[in-house]
Amino acid sequence: MDLTFKSDVFATETLKLADTEEMIVRGGRDKFSLLPKAFAGIKQIGVIGWGSQGPAQAQNLRDSLEGTDIRVKIGLRPGSSSMAAAREAGFTEEAGTLGEMYQVIRESEMVLLLISDAAQAEHYQQVFDNLQPGSTLGLSHGFLLGYLESIGKYFPKNINVIGVCPKGMGPSVRRLYVLGKEVNGAGINSSFAVEQDIDGKATDQALGWAVAVGAPYIFKTSLGHEFRSDIFGERGILLGAVHGIVEMLYRRYVMEEGRDESQAFIDSVETITGPISKTISYQGIIAVYEQLSGEDREIFERAYSHSYRPAFDILLEIYDEVSSCNEIRSVIMAGQRHERFPMGTIDGTRMWQVGEKVRAARSGETKIHPFTAGVYCATMMAQIDLLIEKGHCLSEVANESVIEAVDSLNPYMHHKGVAFMVDNCSTTARLGSRKWAPRFDYNLSQQAMTDFDAGKPANQDLLAAFKNHKIHQALAACAELRPSVDIAFV
Amino acid sequence: MDLTFKSDVFATETLKLADTEEMIVRGGRDKFSLLPKAFAGIKQIGVIGWGSQGPAQAQNLRDSLEGTDIRVKIGLRPGSSSMAAAREAGFTEEAGTLGEMYQVIRESEMVLLLISDAAQAEHYQQVFDNLQPGSTLGLSHGFLLGYLESIGKYFPKNINVIGVCPKGMGPSVRRLYVLGKEVNGAGINSSFAVEQDIDGKATDQALGWAVAVGAPYIFKTSLGHEFRSDIFGERGILLGAVHGIVEMLYRRYVMEEGRDESQAFIDSVETITGPISKTISYQGIIAVYEQLSGEDREIFERAYSHSYRPAFDILLEIYDEVSSCNEIRSVIMAGQRHERFPMGTIDGTRMWQVGEKVRAARSGETKIHPFTAGVYCATMMAQIDLLIEKGHCLSEVANESVIEAVDSLNPYMHHKGVAFMVDNCSTTARLGSRKWAPRFDYNLSQQAMTDFDAGKPANQDLLAAFKNHKIHQALAACAELRPSVDIAFV
Repeated sequence: MDLTFKSDVFATETLKLADTEEMIVRGGRDKFSLLPKAFAGIKQIGVIGWGSQGPAQAQNLRDSLEGTDIRVKIGLRPGSSSMAAAREAGFTEEAGTLGEMYQVIRESEMVLLLISDAAQAEHYQQVFDNLQPGSTLGLSHGFLLGYLESIGKYFPKNINVIGVCPKGMGPSVRRLYVLGKEVNGAGINSSFAVEQDIDGKATDQALGWAVAVGAPYIFKTSLGHEFRSDIFGERGILLGAVHGIVEMLYRRYVMEEGRDESQAFIDSVETITGPISKTISYQGIIAVYEQLSGEDREIFERAYSHSYRPAFDILLEIYDEVSSCNEIRSVIMAGQRHERFPMGTIDGTRMWQVGEKVRAARSGETKIHPFTAGVYCATMMAQIDLLIEKGHCLSEVANESVIEAVDSLNPYMHHKGVAFMVDNCSTTARLGSRKWAPRFDYNLSQQAMTDFDAGKPANQDLLAAFKNHKIHQALAACAELRPSVDIAFV
Repeated sequence: MDLTFKSDVFATETLKLADTEEMIVRGGRDKFSLLPKAFAGIKQIGVIGWGSQGPAQAQNLRDSLEGTDIRVKIGLRPGSSSMAAAREAGFTEEAGTLGEMYQVIRESEMVLLLISDAAQAEHYQQVFDNLQPGSTLGLSHGFLLGYLESIGKYFPKNINVIGVCPKGMGPSVRRLYVLGKEVNGAGINSSFAVEQDIDGKATDQALGWAVAVGAPYIFKTSLGHEFRSDIFGERGILLGAVHGIVEMLYRRYVMEEGRDESQAFIDSVETITGPISKTISYQGIIAVYEQLSGEDREIFERAYSHSYRPAFDILLEIYDEVSSCNEIRSVIMAGQRHERFPMGTIDGTRMWQVGEKVRAARSGETKIHPFTAGVYCATMMAQIDLLIEKGHCLSEVANESVIEAVDSLNPYMHHKGVAFMVDNCSTTARLGSRKWAPRFDYNLSQQAMTDFDAGKPANQDLLAAFKNHKIHQALAACAELRPSVDIAFV
């Protein structure tokens, strides 16, 4: 895959990430003046859907385009329960910035399709039929391509098809954009993809879109790589793996180590969503290890060594399932089942009840728990190694495995709880977490914990590979592209 | 699907199962004299593979055909580690009853392909190429049809294709056949399917095969229904569900009810593989409930009520995954991963260590634990209802959901342990258990246990449906077709 590109509007830079060079565009508020040029010929951007990305991107786009004559208009199903929320955010029928979705699609020269995956699978043909010939279809992740692949279809030939995929959930995309008003460059990194370019304008439209939603830096991918890494990532360390890890550890701490329930919750969940995430965000993964000394360091080393391969095992299975389109077929079938049996929530079990009390009673800082840190970092590193092995560029690897976790999802989970996050994310992600969390739990219990408990020594080769991994330099380079901001959700 | 059939050799009977009638053939030693007629034109039956079904079926066939001039010959890969075991069972090169697999395939008028699913997927083309035109290919479950469907292929047109699918694992097929020497009619029930019949002989060949391996009664299915119910069933109550249920219950009893570990193991695992299974085997599912009284009965009712739907939910997902061929694609992809990372065992966790001690220290009978019984019976009933909904005949439903569990797998697990069974069954089943057990565990924890703990009352409609279910009459009718024998593995 060729990751170089040419822009007529934005300056490209070469980002050196360890042993590779990637072409990027740096975002920031100082680039907003270039947006009219990037969107030349576009009078209206239709944002379809008001889920997670919809509200964030629509508001960011509107704010960034203030003072231009490009209109941002929301399109929703008639009678949609999101109408009120869109109006509250200032999009109204009276102002001509809110309307029926197919009407908005027909009117717009650029259409950002931010409805749910299931809705995309159900309505894609009608969406295609209503697009103006020569217009641009924008996606915020590659699911629709994966779905079309799984049924042997493709996009219409008479439109541009681009992707701009923020590496964070909607609320973070908005929150960091707002923070960015004070601190230029705060925001969520974004990949972009040009799937089809019929008029030579697709690249700059995508870059303009990414700049307008507030990306500190923008790197290139393909929609095919994007849906694989995205659907994979949320089943991995971003959501499914972290959920499975904390269930497994909490149980271990209570049942086998006899710890008090609150302390077990602190030592499993709180330590990850709090200090471990913060350390990784500010100083990188290796800093978690380097902060530990003596016996704690040894515990980390053994927990890391024994967890890496069982985690890699499940991650490899997830990648296969996503890549073969099995996972997309499963999501579609689940949607059909949900008409009969709605999905239940996971937040009722005792562990999450304990967690609610722990969050309410928080005082002071939690420490990094060395055993938990070892399991978590091993899983994160396994995900990094797997994505590199599968040919993803380092920016995609770093953002999908580390930055999105520690700068978007974990802080949100720290605020609201892991179970809340699982129960309230996109249906595709929610299904993924429910499917894969228990697999990580069981495999780590059956393989990693048994090796640890049998007293097996740390694997020095794995530790050396960890210490000398190129991801550390890559993360440092990414960090330089945006200022560190504290993204506590309060 | 037409479940009637015509035999020129065996007497057919009408089996009344609740509100349906099924055509069956009754097996038994008194039918062995009909085998030469059923196998007319067949001089050699090649049995390919020596895994679970191979040794059992080959020995049963040989014993049943004693005194005829039909030879049973084993075909294995050159250098196969199973050569020695086959020789020990009396199949030798010198006697002309053991040889290289493709040679045996070329020589035989009937070939029973009992190699692993993965090997079938890998070598099917070479097997097809070596079959005599006009010969008969026999399968013991429908996996190969499912695999061919998943890649858009089919069987060659110039052969018969039949299935005989014993509803029990190989060791039970052999053990009950041997018991049947004393007690005519002991054995494992079998379905049969005629996928392709080029000479009008396929039905009698299949019936002869089923009779010869010792089936007490034989009912008709299609290979398509068979692979769905078979792959589904082992992911459900036969293996995956029972594994997930006991992990969930053991954890609950230790962690939330503070029970001693050994007692928790007895109250979760031992009660299912021991008295609950025996009660169902001799008296039916409803007898488990009827034996309980007072508070125990109420506990069963509430555990049953809250577990039924969360179990149904996962079972429905499994059925979708199997039916769409996703599950078969997954099995094939897993096989490719195993070349790099062999599958680990599950038997090292603390629970299974406790179990080993409990089994070693057994004395006297365990009681039926009402809470465990409620969860287990609800899952079994959910599987029954789902298979009926999907159009499987009652014989297939009863055998795949109840009889195979209580007369084959559970007794084996009682003897060797659930973890041993999971670690030592077919790769397809083993993968299924590892994939689905944790899903049953989490879903029951998150939905059923929370409802129970919240004090929600029993669902009277569900209980009425349970008490008046037609499966009870169907199981009683099946039980009449074979004598009750104690299948303890000692």
